[in-house]
Amino acid sequence: MINTLCVIGVGLIGGSLAKVLRKKKWCRRVIGIDTNQQALETALELNVIDDGFADVEQCTEVPDVVVIAVPVLRVKDVFAQLQPWKSQCKAVTDVCSTKMNVIQAYEDVFASSGENCFVPGHPIAGRETSGVAEAVNDLFLQKKVILTPLKSTSKDSINLVSDMWEQTGANVEQLGPQEHDKILAATSHLPHALAYSLVHCLSTQSHTEEIFRYAAGGFADFTRIASSDPVVWREICLANREQLLAALEHFDTSLLQLRDSLQANDGDALEKIFTQAKNARDEYRNS
Amino acid sequence: MINTLCVIGVGLIGGSLAKVLRKKKWCRRVIGIDTNQQALETALELNVIDDGFADVEQCTEVPDVVVIAVPVLRVKDVFAQLQPWKSQCKAVTDVCSTKMNVIQAYEDVFASSGENCFVPGHPIAGRETSGVAEAVNDLFLQKKVILTPLKSTSKDSINLVSDMWEQTGANVEQLGPQEHDKILAATSHLPHALAYSLVHCLSTQSHTEEIFRYAAGGFADFTRIASSDPVVWREICLANREQLLAALEHFDTSLLQLRDSLQANDGDALEKIFTQAKNARDEYRNS
Repeated sequence: MINTLCVIGVGLIGGSLAKVLRKKKWCRRVIGIDTNQQALETALELNVIDDGFADVEQCTEVPDVVVIAVPVLRVKDVFAQLQPWKSQCKAVTDVCSTKMNVIQAYEDVFASSGENCFVPGHPIAGRETSGVAEAVNDLFLQKKVILTPLKSTSKDSINLVSDMWEQTGANVEQLGPQEHDKILAATSHLPHALAYSLVHCLSTQSHTEEIFRYAAGGFADFTRIASSDPVVWREICLANREQLLAALEHFDTSLLQLRDSLQANDGDALEKIFTQAKNARDEYRNS
Repeated sequence: MINTLCVIGVGLIGGSLAKVLRKKKWCRRVIGIDTNQQALETALELNVIDDGFADVEQCTEVPDVVVIAVPVLRVKDVFAQLQPWKSQCKAVTDVCSTKMNVIQAYEDVFASSGENCFVPGHPIAGRETSGVAEAVNDLFLQKKVILTPLKSTSKDSINLVSDMWEQTGANVEQLGPQEHDKILAATSHLPHALAYSLVHCLSTQSHTEEIFRYAAGGFADFTRIASSDPVVWREICLANREQLLAALEHFDTSLLQLRDSLQANDGDALEKIFTQAKNARDEYRNS
């Protein structure tokens, strides 16, 4: 148990984390920091935070643990604000979907090479809704949380952040940051790009209304992630640009293979692609 | 209520339809026809059919209503087998996901231009599992069934097939066959092609196992349809080849727009695409 948790960015992820950690009594107090006054008010009303501030400067109390839960490209500004707290916190972590650029931002701001308390993290959890009003206690339950610590990160900070996530019911693992970004480009960023592209493509057609009218369950599942927050995903895509471009290129090769087979009326080639995909998907489901 | 229903192709769709129509007592008897002896045995065991035959010729009783539920490219062979029954049935319908090619097959086999009992149909329902063992009573509940009757289809046959589907709890509508195929290419065939391509692409990468290991809920939803039956989807793609190729081309334009924006680090352009997609998806969800 710690004394004070500070969540910077009181949205779905930050709010859900604060909510469950209070419930588990892992922290005595929660401070929320958000430039959005309405988010702070909602968080106070819902009893997710004890105090709310528009920025770090206004908060006079130094927290034990800081969780940065803002859109990924804003993390660097937050690091700059954290300068005064840095040597006093037990751990600083983040929840961003990309890790290489967060680490780069950290190194840009905190140039020192000594041991530090920064534990880059990524809970692989979420939903297509957003905002603290949607915060729930079980958002991280049985989900994976990947930590990508620096060589200079203190072991105590890693243990504290691991403990924090374990309180939420998540399974904590460690990966290298580059490996993390490559894997997430394939399983998360690429699917989001495809879902957004598909719905964008259909919404620009002349018979959009009829198209959606006759869409069935498979379509609803397939396009659910296209309801995700556009600002969050703009930033994730930009932050993991190289890996996502590589994943898109790889995907394009597969799609072209399918299209060429269809163009050539080559049913056997189509069936081979579909069968390989089905086998991989079935194995994933059963694992 | 009719006397005898004949389901040709006793799989998930044909089996579920037989099951619920028996339950609703819409038919007195169900005959199953399937070249797969195991499917017939399972259907008999599960009490989905009363009698099973390997082909139409072996069945001496002429049914009132015939439902063709075989993969789409096999429909023409079935029509040929139905020649002896044709003038005695009250209605013949099918459940195929594409309609233009089924109508073409019908016209190839039954050249006569007079009034007839064929009602092309398509229940927009299904799941990624297959086989009669998976048959359920509520597969069509509150789902859309689209009928695309010919000009020569008798009104009585249309009414009978509509009544049959309404018994299952489905909402029956009519569309032109070409319009049907264009809409389904966009909302069903294209998403399946993309899901298959994505999983195929990931399954051919060097770190496939890790990729799937860290895949989250959004990925599971997005790729669920890649577990669909490869033979069924091979045939659907070939049957609706022109419309699917057009849909793929349209999608490619959208994906290229996204990729170009990402390549150019143009966050505003990305956000615009994502926002338009999110708005369309949210509207669909709320409709």
